[in-house]
Amino acid sequence: MDLGAIVSETWTELADERGSGNPARYIPALALVDPNKFGIALATSDGEVFCAGNADEAFSIQSISKVFALALALEREGPALWDAVGREPSGNAFNSIVQLEREKGIPRNPFINSGAIVTTDRFIGDRSPDEAVEDLLARLKRMGRDETIRFDPEVARSESETGSRNRSLAWFLADFGRLLNPVEDVLSVYFRQCALAMSCRQLAESALFLAFDGTDPVTGQQMCSASRARRINALMLLCGHYDNSGQFAFEVGFPGKSGVGGGILASVPGRAAIAVWSPGLNRAGTSLLGAKALAQIARRTGWSVFSGKLPEI
Amino acid sequence: MDLGAIVSETWTELADERGSGNPARYIPALALVDPNKFGIALATSDGEVFCAGNADEAFSIQSISKVFALALALEREGPALWDAVGREPSGNAFNSIVQLEREKGIPRNPFINSGAIVTTDRFIGDRSPDEAVEDLLARLKRMGRDETIRFDPEVARSESETGSRNRSLAWFLADFGRLLNPVEDVLSVYFRQCALAMSCRQLAESALFLAFDGTDPVTGQQMCSASRARRINALMLLCGHYDNSGQFAFEVGFPGKSGVGGGILASVPGRAAIAVWSPGLNRAGTSLLGAKALAQIARRTGWSVFSGKLPEI
Amino acid sequence: MDLGAIVSETWTELADERGSGNPARYIPALALVDPNKFGIALATSDGEVFCAGNADEAFSIQSISKVFALALALEREGPALWDAVGREPSGNAFNSIVQLEREKGIPRNPFINSGAIVTTDRFIGDRSPDEAVEDLLARLKRMGRDETIRFDPEVARSESETGSRNRSLAWFLADFGRLLNPVEDVLSVYFRQCALAMSCRQLAESALFLAFDGTDPVTGQQMCSASRARRINALMLLCGHYDNSGQFAFEVGFPGKSGVGGGILASVPGRAAIAVWSPGLNRAGTSLLGAKALAQIARRTGWSVFSGKLPEI
Amino acid sequence: MDLGAIVSETWTELADERGSGNPARYIPALALVDPNKFGIALATSDGEVFCAGNADEAFSIQSISKVFALALALEREGPALWDAVGREPSGNAFNSIVQLEREKGIPRNPFINSGAIVTTDRFIGDRSPDEAVEDLLARLKRMGRDETIRFDPEVARSESETGSRNRSLAWFLADFGRLLNPVEDVLSVYFRQCALAMSCRQLAESALFLAFDGTDPVTGQQMCSASRARRINALMLLCGHYDNSGQFAFEVGFPGKSGVGGGILASVPGRAAIAVWSPGLNRAGTSLLGAKALAQIARRTGWSVFSGKLPEI
Repeated sequence: MDLGAIVSETWTELADERGSGNPARYIPALALVDPNKFGIALATSDGEVFCAGNADEAFSIQSISKVFALALALEREGPALWDAVGREPSGNAFNSIVQLEREKGIPRNPFINSGAIVTTDRFIGDRSPDEAVEDLLARLKRMGRDETIRFDPEVARSESETGSRNRSLAWFLADFGRLLNPVEDVLSVYFRQCALAMSCRQLAESALFLAFDGTDPVTGQQMCSASRARRINALMLLCGHYDNSGQFAFEVGFPGKSGVGGGILASVPGRAAIAVWSPGLNRAGTSLLGAKALAQIARRTGWSVFSGKLPEI
Repeated sequence: MDLGAIVSETWTELADERGSGNPARYIPALALVDPNKFGIALATSDGEVFCAGNADEAFSIQSISKVFALALALEREGPALWDAVGREPSGNAFNSIVQLEREKGIPRNPFINSGAIVTTDRFIGDRSPDEAVEDLLARLKRMGRDETIRFDPEVARSESETGSRNRSLAWFLADFGRLLNPVEDVLSVYFRQCALAMSCRQLAESALFLAFDGTDPVTGQQMCSASRARRINALMLLCGHYDNSGQFAFEVGFPGKSGVGGGILASVPGRAAIAVWSPGLNRAGTSLLGAKALAQIARRTGWSVFSGKLPEI
Repeated sequence: MDLGAIVSETWTELADERGSGNPARYIPALALVDPNKFGIALATSDGEVFCAGNADEAFSIQSISKVFALALALEREGPALWDAVGREPSGNAFNSIVQLEREKGIPRNPFINSGAIVTTDRFIGDRSPDEAVEDLLARLKRMGRDETIRFDPEVARSESETGSRNRSLAWFLADFGRLLNPVEDVLSVYFRQCALAMSCRQLAESALFLAFDGTDPVTGQQMCSASRARRINALMLLCGHYDNSGQFAFEVGFPGKSGVGGGILASVPGRAAIAVWSPGLNRAGTSLLGAKALAQIARRTGWSVFSGKLPEI
Repeated sequence: MDLGAIVSETWTELADERGSGNPARYIPALALVDPNKFGIALATSDGEVFCAGNADEAFSIQSISKVFALALALEREGPALWDAVGREPSGNAFNSIVQLEREKGIPRNPFINSGAIVTTDRFIGDRSPDEAVEDLLARLKRMGRDETIRFDPEVARSESETGSRNRSLAWFLADFGRLLNPVEDVLSVYFRQCALAMSCRQLAESALFLAFDGTDPVTGQQMCSASRARRINALMLLCGHYDNSGQFAFEVGFPGKSGVGGGILASVPGRAAIAVWSPGLNRAGTSLLGAKALAQIARRTGWSVFSGKLPEI
């Protein structure tokens, strides 16, 4: 299978639709991004990365960071994390507080905002916010094999200034006694984590361990156990796209995680990690062109976790 | 891989836990079932079926029937079905009406009760209730390669007599103009469909087409397109176990559908179809021992749609 | 105070606005009513009834009947009724099922549809539906001092044919075991009760007992205890206009009950009973012109249960 | 009518029940109050104040302050206030955020916490928090004709330290752009306002204007228009006791406002203002003994806004 051709044909076929969807406007720094950006990167186990378009340009990964935060919080806390956050789809918008009230401050899953705030709190643990942020960055540099990965301080400031809903969620969690650290400490890490700037290439390389049972197939470095990697994939498939996850599983068929910056990170177990970027979003907050590109790649490769065809090796 | 040994070892290891969980009591006919029943059947593409325990005893498949109803409704309606029912997890109990009010009578997915009622309505189409029921039964006999598959009239009567909540859901749908047929006609098919009696062996054989891209690998008969089979798997993974689907995906890792009769039907794409039965349920209405058995089989086989290991062929 | 002049001036001042608002269309028989109808009747303790406009024309009283049903159910059941239905405002639409699910089938109050269905069920008690309906009609004829009060069979049939939402609510209540009688029996009384046809004059006369501590001041006949009459007034003030009750209490300032037929019945404790009728409704289902007329009468008379002025006697 | 005897008999009859109910514990400073405190004060238009028990001891008025805040915010803003906060009962707990999400940040009424936060924000207007607080205090000293009325700084600090839920509500409002002032500024006034310490006597005297159409009948000073006073009474009747307002209207029958400090302030239009205090609360957060005392006074005086008896003058 010529993966390079598939990536570039997918890009070419969709290039005319650049600019469709609506970029997130609630953070000024995001509203400034050129809506015509469109990048694809597909990383495989033998170290190759097939790229198209703006695949090497860093963008704000936003909620995609929740996947890395989850992996790192699980590493620190182990299964005890699941006492503080659930593993079920929410059936509500990503920033809804309704369910949180009914379920007494236990967020439904680590990929809605309230759940990600709890995850970040546990990742901080007994460290200072700055120590936690440095640790997160160091890990990502190692996973992405790139020392230039960084936060966008402008976006982080913007996140904090416009972060009323997240502040409300965090105080709500605090009211139920669900946070170990002070609200503003947790948010200071959370806002910086959302403001990570990475390229499609960096994202795809960083996430190979998810597609290969916890071990980066290129460096041989184990990030987590096989069972944990599979479970993170399960959560991505069920909850990775807010109230749009069913649609994504249905159309694309592999685990993924969206961010309102227009990025989507997908893990294709046993095959590849793929990152796409296009700022225009659909109504549920997932990149419109990004989801289309992944559906195309799924169709062209025949990859799907639901495929009945055994792979040709 | 010795699948026969895996099935029997799984059964033996869990046999002491027979009777755990709480059988459904809301239908008198279900409350009479011996809680110590425990059966497993695993069907593969070469026609073999590995069984253990009460694998050949028919039980009330209840909501597992929603998978077959969905496949048949899609065959009649095509993608237009998705105008009437969604594809997202509900984040609520299987019989909740709250979301249905908020979303104006469009059920979240075909596996919650309201969604299944809509699916049944579309499967009936312009036929009489009895014609639809006969067609459903004929299909299942063919899929299960067994002429003895039948409804349990006692359970169907019991369903109807205790079906107040389903009546309420159906009238609610009717109020929003979401049903094509009269409420009592739809319910008369729905209650009979839920009262189908099948054994683990019959279920596993009937569902092989889901695991093999729409075609029964034993008979070569195509039940639906590859893409449709994959999508049904996606829905089972995301919504197959009520408000317990995340937990199941997390622990087991393949598409499945529970019924309150204690059965679970699982599709392992490219590998097998598995049915388990044990009447005791967990709090969310999924068979307690059944879910454990599937988790064991997943662990012993290494099968998971999220596995990063390429299969050895 | 010249109440006759106040009634006719109010009518004249608002007559130009006849036809404003939107008449209920969900029942065909209601949609046929001339939207320009506008009647006012004000009955006092000395037996006088001041009328204006279409005050002697019978219209479908719809939910206003819930006040009479409540009084009669309390007479049969006593305070035990309050185990089956609450006394709190709902904060939701009149036909919402959401709260009913959360509160396990105990309706918030007797004036939302689910609560009225329970009230009707208790009013029926161990009688047949037809006996209950005859009793209700006999009572109203006595209260309204008019043998011609009757049901509109066309509206009752229309109610039943379009009553999907009420059927859904009733089956929902039945599912929680909240009804003593079969669902269709309860609904058959409920639909006829909603289809009562009465004029403003008949309504005002029938409700004088509410304004005068339970005893009709004209006939001296006691309908209920003073304490019960006051409590029914309290419920009307808090819950009489669906999710619009606060607005009505704020603008008008006395207990009232709306019906989607465009009628409003108001009780002014110690002073009068007033009925108004104009088919056009506001967004919450209360007669637009009717509420304006009552606000005008409140302003002109200075009457308000919140008035700090002691009455001049 | 011997009001002095009624007040003291009511106190005596209920004195044995002192200590019943559960004092609020969420604020440490409230948990320290002697649960056996029980005071009653009834102020009439001729300047008399009938007292019993601990009627001259200051306690934390908590949410009773919302009535004064509303009157003062209406004075500053006029009816424009109603664009920012509704006038309907909520059908939910006092601190619920669910409805606020559904209704996009417009609180249901000024007496639930979110609504009171908006009211406080508008009362602050373009002033500094400290200026607003000083103004509020000056007004209350004048209304209560007592220069010693003050804030309890210990309670205010306690409120702020335990105010996570209120912080969450305020940030939620801010997220919808519903606050004119910075969240912490609004909360700093809100927490001090809740920490006002007043006695039953001071409360009753301060609230006479509500019972007498906006003008203090003793000093002749006009606090607000008759229409505004009546409307505040309407809101107190409909929404004054959280999700317990229907019960209170039903049992007591006049407008009131509870605070979790165990106080209840009642306005009896045309008659009197009454304040009671007993720290033990019922499940909905209203003083258990306080509500009983008011029901007794209502019974003994025959006062009720729903009474059909014209007053003997």
